[in-house]
Amino acid sequence: MKNFVYLCAYMINFNYHNPTKVIFGKAVVTQLGREAVKYGNRALVLIGQGSVKKNGLLDLVWAQLESMGILPTLFEGIRPNPVYQDCDKAVQVALEANVDMIIAVGGGSVLDSAKAIAMGYHVNHSIWDFYTQKAPKPASALPILAVLTLAATGSEMNPYTVIQDTENGLKIGYGSPLLYPKVSFLDPTYTFSVSPTQTAYGVVDLISHCLEEFFEPTPSPLSDCIATDIIRLAFQYGRQVVTEPENYEARAQVMWLATMALNGSLSAGKYGGDWGVHALEHSLSVLFDIAHGAGLAIVYPAWLKYHQTQASAKLDFLAARVLGDGHTGVEFIEALEAFYTEMGAHIRLGQASIGADKHPQIIENWTKSKASGGFFKLASQDYPALLELMA
Amino acid sequence: MKNFVYLCAYMINFNYHNPTKVIFGKAVVTQLGREAVKYGNRALVLIGQGSVKKNGLLDLVWAQLESMGILPTLFEGIRPNPVYQDCDKAVQVALEANVDMIIAVGGGSVLDSAKAIAMGYHVNHSIWDFYTQKAPKPASALPILAVLTLAATGSEMNPYTVIQDTENGLKIGYGSPLLYPKVSFLDPTYTFSVSPTQTAYGVVDLISHCLEEFFEPTPSPLSDCIATDIIRLAFQYGRQVVTEPENYEARAQVMWLATMALNGSLSAGKYGGDWGVHALEHSLSVLFDIAHGAGLAIVYPAWLKYHQTQASAKLDFLAARVLGDGHTGVEFIEALEAFYTEMGAHIRLGQASIGADKHPQIIENWTKSKASGGFFKLASQDYPALLELMA
Repeated sequence: MKNFVYLCAYMINFNYHNPTKVIFGKAVVTQLGREAVKYGNRALVLIGQGSVKKNGLLDLVWAQLESMGILPTLFEGIRPNPVYQDCDKAVQVALEANVDMIIAVGGGSVLDSAKAIAMGYHVNHSIWDFYTQKAPKPASALPILAVLTLAATGSEMNPYTVIQDTENGLKIGYGSPLLYPKVSFLDPTYTFSVSPTQTAYGVVDLISHCLEEFFEPTPSPLSDCIATDIIRLAFQYGRQVVTEPENYEARAQVMWLATMALNGSLSAGKYGGDWGVHALEHSLSVLFDIAHGAGLAIVYPAWLKYHQTQASAKLDFLAARVLGDGHTGVEFIEALEAFYTEMGAHIRLGQASIGADKHPQIIENWTKSKASGGFFKLASQDYPALLELMA
Repeated sequence: MKNFVYLCAYMINFNYHNPTKVIFGKAVVTQLGREAVKYGNRALVLIGQGSVKKNGLLDLVWAQLESMGILPTLFEGIRPNPVYQDCDKAVQVALEANVDMIIAVGGGSVLDSAKAIAMGYHVNHSIWDFYTQKAPKPASALPILAVLTLAATGSEMNPYTVIQDTENGLKIGYGSPLLYPKVSFLDPTYTFSVSPTQTAYGVVDLISHCLEEFFEPTPSPLSDCIATDIIRLAFQYGRQVVTEPENYEARAQVMWLATMALNGSLSAGKYGGDWGVHALEHSLSVLFDIAHGAGLAIVYPAWLKYHQTQASAKLDFLAARVLGDGHTGVEFIEALEAFYTEMGAHIRLGQASIGADKHPQIIENWTKSKASGGFFKLASQDYPALLELMA
């Protein structure tokens, strides 16, 4: 395989630090009690729409906490596209219960909400003020322990959180070193029951995280190698998890790939990625309440086509690494679309029942949120062409 | 590229946690003071044979500490193959100075000694008792901050330490979660003055760490991909650092590769590696006072040849990843020997002036130390054939 030739002069300065402890594998949630007790004796247990009640996971969490004398208080109902109002309500519940920690049991939306609540616990304003930059950075946050049930966002081992204000059409990301979960429990068996579609969206999400880092042009050869390794393995195991939902090996691989895609492994020697596609996608999620991964499957192919010339060298490198020597960037984009389609994800707005009548609304939201990227700068003149490629 | 087919059933359970904060790049040592002050106001500064006095690094460290009101106490003279007696002496100096932390300024030998001293500070026995398992695991350790001057061992971001008892011919590794450095400062410019030979040994060391992890047969596809990426990039940048010692980019890449080779990135989904070659090499270092990397360049090719049949599938995968599709395991071994030779490392005992008259001594040391591996179990019946391949 040829090595990629970078244009930039040298490796940049960077910090590399991730304090989260990951406990990975079968039945690891039985270690929750002994880890949680290090952080106090009252916990807010945060869950989503209730699937963890049905499959017994919440009972296990409860038993673990009670066995160590930890008093749990439940807050349920976090939505798949989490809203700040739920987080503000949960802060009040946490304050009333005088909790020492948050136990987040769910996917990225529950974990991201836990991070918002952890910050909100110590301030007298809405958690949304952090995201809109109205409030100063948090000085402290409650400790978070996470029990993951969906392989997708990487929130289990990173300091990021994305929350939305549905009424005002804003979906905003936020990060603080205070927000790394203290401990995350990753048992792949809890992802067996995730539907094929949601599973596919998770795979799309993890691939997108690699692409956002990869297309930042700052030279970091090992990062680029690992990013393309993760994508190649996500193609391989992604096919399997969609067709064989109870294949432990495939579920485990996808779960670990999703964590590694956004836990800092790819950010060494980088300024932090481009994230232009995420900015574009957030508008789709907030406007049409579609899953983040569903939106990414539509936006990324369009973004790649739009930057095909500018990013041709990196696209060719990506193609060679993922598809094999001799493949071109154009073939990579085709393969990505074919893979997403095979997994059951839509790759065009039209397929997702978002018709041309909605285009002005999308453009308006992009304009309002100044959807762009760190390196491939997007602005209003780019929006119509991008939308055309997504239609 | 073909995917490797694993024989084992599924991904094992594992923990993944590395609390060390790495600050990487040009002039990062100017951040030492503000990081150190978090840990107290008296520091033992540990150095090796004095090169950091000549190049101004020790003065910078001193100024950084004093600028924050931290009282430094110097302990110098740690040997390239560090001995426990020096560590015990340093513990006494640290106790007299009543220090709060250790600042290790040097390569792996200084960092590994700092870890020994950090444990020894809180007990009433020789640090050597930890390594020989005579003493129980440490309950506490002084915080360590590291300023790295050599890219090789990865000690800057791991919990391991290797120390020797020269008189009794024992070189033993030890690990404890208490021994992760709190902060490590990695400025590649401080490696410019490392001699070509020592530089080459560092590259051999980091490649060997990848091989030890890679040849553990437990299936962890991403780990195997990253290990082979690191080796491929080490071939590329290793050539450069030896011929262009002041090439910042190449020095930076090698420094980062060495850290990533042994900071846990490869241990996810693994039981921890084979480490048989390291066990064999430790005898060479302790008997003939040769650099660890020098010994590894001799032992690894022999070990690979000896296990060529048993490990043929992994060897072929390694060859395809490092050399390109279609290359065989045999070609990888040849390429490794050619690469080490090109960098100026010896690949046979004879070249290193260790003649056949020394063979009985080596066999005796292997026998005494029960040199083996976690997966490719070696025992006395294997030693003569391995030695023959190294001769």
